[in-house]
Amino acid sequence: MHLLVVNPNTTASMTAKIGAAARAVAAPGTRITAVNPADGPASIEGYYDEVFCLPGLLAEIGKGRADGVDAAIVACFDDTGLDACRTVLDGPVLGLCEAAMHTATLLAGSFSVVTTLRRSVPIIEHLAVRYGMAQRCRRVRAAEVPVLALEDPGSDAAERVKAEVQRCLTEDGAEAVLLGCAGMTDLAARLTRETGAPVIDGVAAAVKLAEALVGLGLKTSRLGAYAAPRSKPYTGVFADRAPTAPAD
Amino acid sequence: MHLLVVNPNTTASMTAKIGAAARAVAAPGTRITAVNPADGPASIEGYYDEVFCLPGLLAEIGKGRADGVDAAIVACFDDTGLDACRTVLDGPVLGLCEAAMHTATLLAGSFSVVTTLRRSVPIIEHLAVRYGMAQRCRRVRAAEVPVLALEDPGSDAAERVKAEVQRCLTEDGAEAVLLGCAGMTDLAARLTRETGAPVIDGVAAAVKLAEALVGLGLKTSRLGAYAAPRSKPYTGVFADRAPTAPAD
Amino acid sequence: MHLLVVNPNTTASMTAKIGAAARAVAAPGTRITAVNPADGPASIEGYYDEVFCLPGLLAEIGKGRADGVDAAIVACFDDTGLDACRTVLDGPVLGLCEAAMHTATLLAGSFSVVTTLRRSVPIIEHLAVRYGMAQRCRRVRAAEVPVLALEDPGSDAAERVKAEVQRCLTEDGAEAVLLGCAGMTDLAARLTRETGAPVIDGVAAAVKLAEALVGLGLKTSRLGAYAAPRSKPYTGVFADRAPTAPAD
Amino acid sequence: MHLLVVNPNTTASMTAKIGAAARAVAAPGTRITAVNPADGPASIEGYYDEVFCLPGLLAEIGKGRADGVDAAIVACFDDTGLDACRTVLDGPVLGLCEAAMHTATLLAGSFSVVTTLRRSVPIIEHLAVRYGMAQRCRRVRAAEVPVLALEDPGSDAAERVKAEVQRCLTEDGAEAVLLGCAGMTDLAARLTRETGAPVIDGVAAAVKLAEALVGLGLKTSRLGAYAAPRSKPYTGVFADRAPTAPAD
Amino acid sequence: MHLLVVNPNTTASMTAKIGAAARAVAAPGTRITAVNPADGPASIEGYYDEVFCLPGLLAEIGKGRADGVDAAIVACFDDTGLDACRTVLDGPVLGLCEAAMHTATLLAGSFSVVTTLRRSVPIIEHLAVRYGMAQRCRRVRAAEVPVLALEDPGSDAAERVKAEVQRCLTEDGAEAVLLGCAGMTDLAARLTRETGAPVIDGVAAAVKLAEALVGLGLKTSRLGAYAAPRSKPYTGVFADRAPTAPAD
Amino acid sequence: MHLLVVNPNTTASMTAKIGAAARAVAAPGTRITAVNPADGPASIEGYYDEVFCLPGLLAEIGKGRADGVDAAIVACFDDTGLDACRTVLDGPVLGLCEAAMHTATLLAGSFSVVTTLRRSVPIIEHLAVRYGMAQRCRRVRAAEVPVLALEDPGSDAAERVKAEVQRCLTEDGAEAVLLGCAGMTDLAARLTRETGAPVIDGVAAAVKLAEALVGLGLKTSRLGAYAAPRSKPYTGVFADRAPTAPAD
Repeated sequence: MHLLVVNPNTTASMTAKIGAAARAVAAPGTRITAVNPADGPASIEGYYDEVFCLPGLLAEIGKGRADGVDAAIVACFDDTGLDACRTVLDGPVLGLCEAAMHTATLLAGSFSVVTTLRRSVPIIEHLAVRYGMAQRCRRVRAAEVPVLALEDPGSDAAERVKAEVQRCLTEDGAEAVLLGCAGMTDLAARLTRETGAPVIDGVAAAVKLAEALVGLGLKTSRLGAYAAPRSKPYTGVFADRAPTAPAD
Repeated sequence: MHLLVVNPNTTASMTAKIGAAARAVAAPGTRITAVNPADGPASIEGYYDEVFCLPGLLAEIGKGRADGVDAAIVACFDDTGLDACRTVLDGPVLGLCEAAMHTATLLAGSFSVVTTLRRSVPIIEHLAVRYGMAQRCRRVRAAEVPVLALEDPGSDAAERVKAEVQRCLTEDGAEAVLLGCAGMTDLAARLTRETGAPVIDGVAAAVKLAEALVGLGLKTSRLGAYAAPRSKPYTGVFADRAPTAPAD
Repeated sequence: MHLLVVNPNTTASMTAKIGAAARAVAAPGTRITAVNPADGPASIEGYYDEVFCLPGLLAEIGKGRADGVDAAIVACFDDTGLDACRTVLDGPVLGLCEAAMHTATLLAGSFSVVTTLRRSVPIIEHLAVRYGMAQRCRRVRAAEVPVLALEDPGSDAAERVKAEVQRCLTEDGAEAVLLGCAGMTDLAARLTRETGAPVIDGVAAAVKLAEALVGLGLKTSRLGAYAAPRSKPYTGVFADRAPTAPAD
Repeated sequence: MHLLVVNPNTTASMTAKIGAAARAVAAPGTRITAVNPADGPASIEGYYDEVFCLPGLLAEIGKGRADGVDAAIVACFDDTGLDACRTVLDGPVLGLCEAAMHTATLLAGSFSVVTTLRRSVPIIEHLAVRYGMAQRCRRVRAAEVPVLALEDPGSDAAERVKAEVQRCLTEDGAEAVLLGCAGMTDLAARLTRETGAPVIDGVAAAVKLAEALVGLGLKTSRLGAYAAPRSKPYTGVFADRAPTAPAD
Repeated sequence: MHLLVVNPNTTASMTAKIGAAARAVAAPGTRITAVNPADGPASIEGYYDEVFCLPGLLAEIGKGRADGVDAAIVACFDDTGLDACRTVLDGPVLGLCEAAMHTATLLAGSFSVVTTLRRSVPIIEHLAVRYGMAQRCRRVRAAEVPVLALEDPGSDAAERVKAEVQRCLTEDGAEAVLLGCAGMTDLAARLTRETGAPVIDGVAAAVKLAEALVGLGLKTSRLGAYAAPRSKPYTGVFADRAPTAPAD
Repeated sequence: MHLLVVNPNTTASMTAKIGAAARAVAAPGTRITAVNPADGPASIEGYYDEVFCLPGLLAEIGKGRADGVDAAIVACFDDTGLDACRTVLDGPVLGLCEAAMHTATLLAGSFSVVTTLRRSVPIIEHLAVRYGMAQRCRRVRAAEVPVLALEDPGSDAAERVKAEVQRCLTEDGAEAVLLGCAGMTDLAARLTRETGAPVIDGVAAAVKLAEALVGLGLKTSRLGAYAAPRSKPYTGVFADRAPTAPAD
């Protein structure tokens, strides 16, 4: 099985960390290809950054399609561009937030999320509503740690995340905690050990759910919004990105 | 007051129609500038097309900011890129679906939506959930009319839309109907007259709500996900789109 | 355009303040008529007071209809009698709570409300549920200020409201704040300036939304609960209030 | 135990029918007083009629309070004025819709409602949302029978109601049916017998729930919106209705 | 009227207390039979204990059916086995949580629950969701009192429950409080008196609601999940528990 | 990895079919042990049958625990006893309905369910509400096929299921379909092929999700309702089933 993991930002060290996390949980027969676009933001912190990772993200998904990958993962907790990616690839596409929330509810009655900055809180709250998880999600908390501080060994980012995870358990009464940024992927195992609660990393969760869906032989439904893009002209710098599938 | 109306697709005839509809309802002191990006899809029919209108859409919003527009409208019923646009402009930004749904609930206990193609139905259903309108929205229906057929005077598009509007009233029991595509903007007045129900066009609704918000002197809140983009490096073809605001 | 603003209580100084607030935001061509009934409570603080403002409120709406007003506003944050008023006037009728909540969600991901007394909190919470706003409404807070204290320049009412507005931002994490009483209409601009968050006054919001709806040429739907009252006999002191429209 | 049943419209024959239905289910020690106001509409069909029954309804509740009734019932399926009545009486006050919906969910997984006219459908749908019953309520149907036709032995009202009850079972898959008008109170037993499903009359349900609450020795909570009305001046025709309780 | 009250655990002192509480509120003509199974757990604290009370609970309901009881009550706040019991008895079956929540919402705009141990909190939260009460339920709190400590006069259980009840009022802003364990049945009247808020005991609430439903002559609907069990073979130790009703 | 699959009914041929389905999708290193209790009902069709499978189900889970299984699956679409099983095993426990619903929402915007008998419809609807899936679940349909008819090659069960699956797509507009009974596990692949929509079998879905969770090294959270059972006496026939873990 071949899984494509796309870090939608352009920070290669983060892609490497995500790839390592993915490989650490992948099944023996699973090949992980971790990539990031060449074009776009160094980190995704809010809606503006999301926009400029999308063309590069879709290009990587398109390459994966040409390479015959079985499934893909959008390695950003905002589930940036997840819907669009599903229209491109026949195989399943997973997002970190969606994967982590589904995983949590199979193991616990409730969960909280620890993300990076306050501006990401409403984004994740909205995803919880969309995924039907609002009633299980106690609270989305910001550790007030910029994404790239997680890449800096000298920062106190890990300590701040841990403190916030503990508040999820003591103040929110959550039974599990989600780490709300792909850059936190290396913290989950230790925090699970230290807190006694399931602390869930979206990268790992998405890899295992992708393996599960591929193993089931199921593909994304084409009957609704994930139908293949309709053929039509695109102009200007995106002219060569026009869908060429026959119109339905 | 200066309102920027951005048709996020590249079809100039549709931009002209939208601009005319906007001017037809604008208050005497309101100047409407209707534009579309040069780059991107000729129509927006699903998540894939959305991606490739976004960089151009944000560029138009950025130009509007430089020109000192008071508010902006994203003239697509999928509310494509609405959140990102709000991080760029200080003044209010409105989407057609959001504007039309809010307008409907001020006039009627329930509504249905008539959109173009089936693939857009789940997109609009999701917006209804996000906007808190799911319990007021009876049904989202597709007239199975491609967006650009609405630009073709020889097509039977208008008849198909009308037939579906009537089904909203008789089969769904809706008290109002939303036209779920910017390309239907010229049909609303006639359908209101012919059916006796409020038939709401998102373009017109968004213009009037934008005037209302500007008139209130209110701006988009910067305290959550609509904070100004954080300063950071962008690479590749989007290098010049990097936010330059001081980090918060 | 002629807008009727009905303060449903009988305190003329409050009517004057509401009228001034309405005129301050009205568009050049908008005429504001601000009235209050002669009969009924001096302030509306809970469900009992609501009952005794209703016949007078409807009488004022009926006079407005005779005068050909284009729209009406019920200037009470409990949206008292809003539904009944919609059955009388063909043009749109707005309530303060409804207008303020819709306005807030066009500008912010979440909001809190500051009202007068604890007894009004469940009333506003119920409106939030009805309007689909419960998931966007962080909290409804009472400043424990009686309505008429807001009319008394010597009271500390403004300070108490301001303190509660700040709690909305710091404790609730709200991105916007609604002032939950028509008597607070003069505080909004200053609080917006001082807190940096959109602080929304229902009177102003309702005026601008009413202008928007009239500008759209839309009327309240007659297909559901807002159908014109059925003709039937009324007896006793209300005999002359019987609807005379032909039965449907 | 003394229960006051107030038919809020002025049709004495309907009051008599409601009183008989109440007495038919009342426990041996329960005394039923069934009254209607002298002032107001002959039937309640929508929001406008509701307004003009309220002062009379509250007067009857006030008399009941002076007479020491233990609980009261507002015998209208729109639960007209229910909230206001709760601020007046210390003992419990029940509405027909609220009572019937609670009763249904103790006996069945889902229910539908059959009411009189289409205009009442959104009113009852709104009550279902407020009472938390929306997910159990399959559908609210109108038999298109005016309220007073139910008082006319020559009309086909009973047949139309029965046909609609059967549609609830066959088309909606409802497990129980509520009769959505006090004037249908005499049809419930027969329809239960003929359909094999619980067909629930709000009058009977409210009487038994009122007995239950009185038997529990519980009173309406005064901690929220049901606090006793605050003392304040009322002017004009309602001057003598001003609350005289000490302000809180 | 003959009501069967089944304490599903095997602690006879608790059955006696529950029976006394039931008799204290029962109407003059109501006979209360309070029993507990011989087989199973001494207390029910979580899902595991629930399983082993069920066969005994159903046996008691079956005996009640043979004895011609008119209704039954499952005297556990987790509403253990309530659904299964409804398939056995023709008359109504009530659970404590369901009864208490319905009672609360007839008297108050919101409520909180005080239960025994943290592990029961998610169970009750889930019931609130299922019963449509989530939006009225402010919070479910654990007093951290084991069930059987409530049977021990020397414990500080009553004090801990009272302290938590007060937190419901001051911290949650609840207007009523539910005692979330059958073993707290003797505390309700005193706490109502001492706090001024309705403090609701599920045993008493269930008895009065059962009387109400029997008085209405209504039975559990057989049209959905409460249909009589289908006839089929059971094997092993439960062979004699196989349903013998004719298959539908 | 060792997965225990417990068919909670006593029909060995169904256990064999479920075991084969599980093995067909299991990863190379996964060992499947499929068992059923000796005691209890031959099929589970409603709440009554559920009760009598539970002690046997928990015994099988307990044996699995002693055998060191890594995870367990309750192979009934009603998710019978799922919560209790989670308190016994440290590793994850999956139910068919929960697994299938989560799987569906990773692949499609909406789904419908086809189950056996009408009496199971409300049970599955309730699970959808509990799992947060109600807004994604279009409809739960009954094929009116008894569970054991699925074991009878001569019955028309497969045809009836297929017809109902097609109605999910054409009438409900669902984008995916869940087979709502473990006995339908052999129909999924063919129906996926024939309809072009993802048709999801809960057995397969649960196996792959269980592998995913075990691969993540995560266990059920002990912080809420899934805490290990408290030590306490059990009496009678269940005396030897008393939990022996130290009380928390």
